[in-house]
Amino acid sequence: MGSVSGGRLAAAVSDAGGLGLIGGGYGDVQWMDAEVAVLKSITSRPWGIGLITWSINAAIVEAALRHRPHALMLSFGDPRPYAQAIRRSGCKLICQVQGLPQARLALEAGADLLVAQGTEAGGHGGQRATLPLVPAIVDMAGGVPVIAAGGIADGRGLAAALMLGAQGALIGTRFYASAESLGRESAKERIVAASGEETARTRVFDVVRRYPWPCLYTGRALVNQFMDRWEGLEGALATLPEPRRAAYAAAVRDGDAHTAMVWAGEAVDLIRTVESAGALVAQIGSEAEALLNRVSGYVR
Amino acid sequence: MGSVSGGRLAAAVSDAGGLGLIGGGYGDVQWMDAEVAVLKSITSRPWGIGLITWSINAAIVEAALRHRPHALMLSFGDPRPYAQAIRRSGCKLICQVQGLPQARLALEAGADLLVAQGTEAGGHGGQRATLPLVPAIVDMAGGVPVIAAGGIADGRGLAAALMLGAQGALIGTRFYASAESLGRESAKERIVAASGEETARTRVFDVVRRYPWPCLYTGRALVNQFMDRWEGLEGALATLPEPRRAAYAAAVRDGDAHTAMVWAGEAVDLIRTVESAGALVAQIGSEAEALLNRVSGYVR
Repeated sequence: MGSVSGGRLAAAVSDAGGLGLIGGGYGDVQWMDAEVAVLKSITSRPWGIGLITWSINAAIVEAALRHRPHALMLSFGDPRPYAQAIRRSGCKLICQVQGLPQARLALEAGADLLVAQGTEAGGHGGQRATLPLVPAIVDMAGGVPVIAAGGIADGRGLAAALMLGAQGALIGTRFYASAESLGRESAKERIVAASGEETARTRVFDVVRRYPWPCLYTGRALVNQFMDRWEGLEGALATLPEPRRAAYAAAVRDGDAHTAMVWAGEAVDLIRTVESAGALVAQIGSEAEALLNRVSGYVR
Repeated sequence: MGSVSGGRLAAAVSDAGGLGLIGGGYGDVQWMDAEVAVLKSITSRPWGIGLITWSINAAIVEAALRHRPHALMLSFGDPRPYAQAIRRSGCKLICQVQGLPQARLALEAGADLLVAQGTEAGGHGGQRATLPLVPAIVDMAGGVPVIAAGGIADGRGLAAALMLGAQGALIGTRFYASAESLGRESAKERIVAASGEETARTRVFDVVRRYPWPCLYTGRALVNQFMDRWEGLEGALATLPEPRRAAYAAAVRDGDAHTAMVWAGEAVDLIRTVESAGALVAQIGSEAEALLNRVSGYVR
């Protein structure tokens, strides 16, 4: 959740017993420094930073490690060039993977934890769905713990993830619609109102912003007018003249929901209110616990 | 599993304690009659027939009901025209749905059971993934029981489905690779060997066979040369001259895996052997039970 999960959200999650991650995204060091300062003013519990692997370099990783995070999560790209520096610093390396090939690279990098992310996740991701992907990754991970991501927004999803062999869940969109997230209020309201049928994977928002995403990865967003207009016309969108690109940037700045993207996963069906992040961690945990306790009724 | 799940497979599943379904597909009454006769020669346990809703008519439904199945499952299309005849005959109506709009129609039809099918399923299906779709359908079903389908091939998937609020799982591809299925041995071997990354959703095999599938639904198959060749060229494929279409039919007849389709879901990663269907039902059940028993360790 690059630029949506800042210090306040990550701190609230960590304070509630989760592992809060600051969404470092493409690697804006100044933004990261500021958000880490916010986090450290709130919590002294374990926390981490997430970064987009293909977008970063050794200097950005070093800048992140200087803050002494407990974990660094690398997603979308080859983690091996950064693995040694991260683990040598005493920081845990989390690798988010979208399929078996990425999981192989992560294991080669010596990842301490794998996040198996399904295509139903909001924002960037791959093609494989969470339910069959998680056990496949667990089977190849040889004891390295696996966390499930994508499509999980409540205790039912967390309990299901545990049954699949995961040790926990990485949850994004549900925390986008939290009081502490840096998302716009209008975006949070759209997430609360939307159905999973209104999300789709797209390259449109990456093309207009000129981010050179590897073609393996697309972003899941709430479908809006801009996406409808340009889907399938990405070639033309890539060569849009500067004033029209500036108009997109202005729409983002102004929070114009018809044009600006709102990344969101398919689990938006399960998101019906904006809550504080701490309350969400507690709710999701206790709902999963109740389900796991209740299963004694299924088996005699 | 139209034409893959015949009487022998359905009977083996029912005999093992599941509800075996004969894959009636597009509604070939002669084939259905023959397979029901096979089933009835083996088992007297509850069983059912699955049909593709947009492809059938009242006469086909009547022909199916004449066999007195315990359940009829309708997938892909509006079930309402057939609901009354089915339920009046004392047969249970199962509706397989791929999203919230289809679930609404199924509830309106008075379905006795909904199957929430995720996009990771083999063969025809929709866009939504199982993990977030199942709880969303459970929440709208108002007490009508829901079964999870798509991406489930072992006890972990079944246990996860129960955590999501489903009452069970509908499992396809895992039973394709069973001794009793009517699939070719070469297809079963490909399913055992394949990874989930080698499956994709496509219209290619429907276009070449001239099945007028509603565009909402695509089929998930193991990617092969024919699919690679025609993906994105469906318009040209639709107007292929007759000799070349005949060549496709010949490849299907000869079991040429480079050309003929093999429907398969993303859970192929979890399928490592061909087993008897009865052993599979027992294995999946006992693995799920063991997992559910073990969770007492998670919660104190």
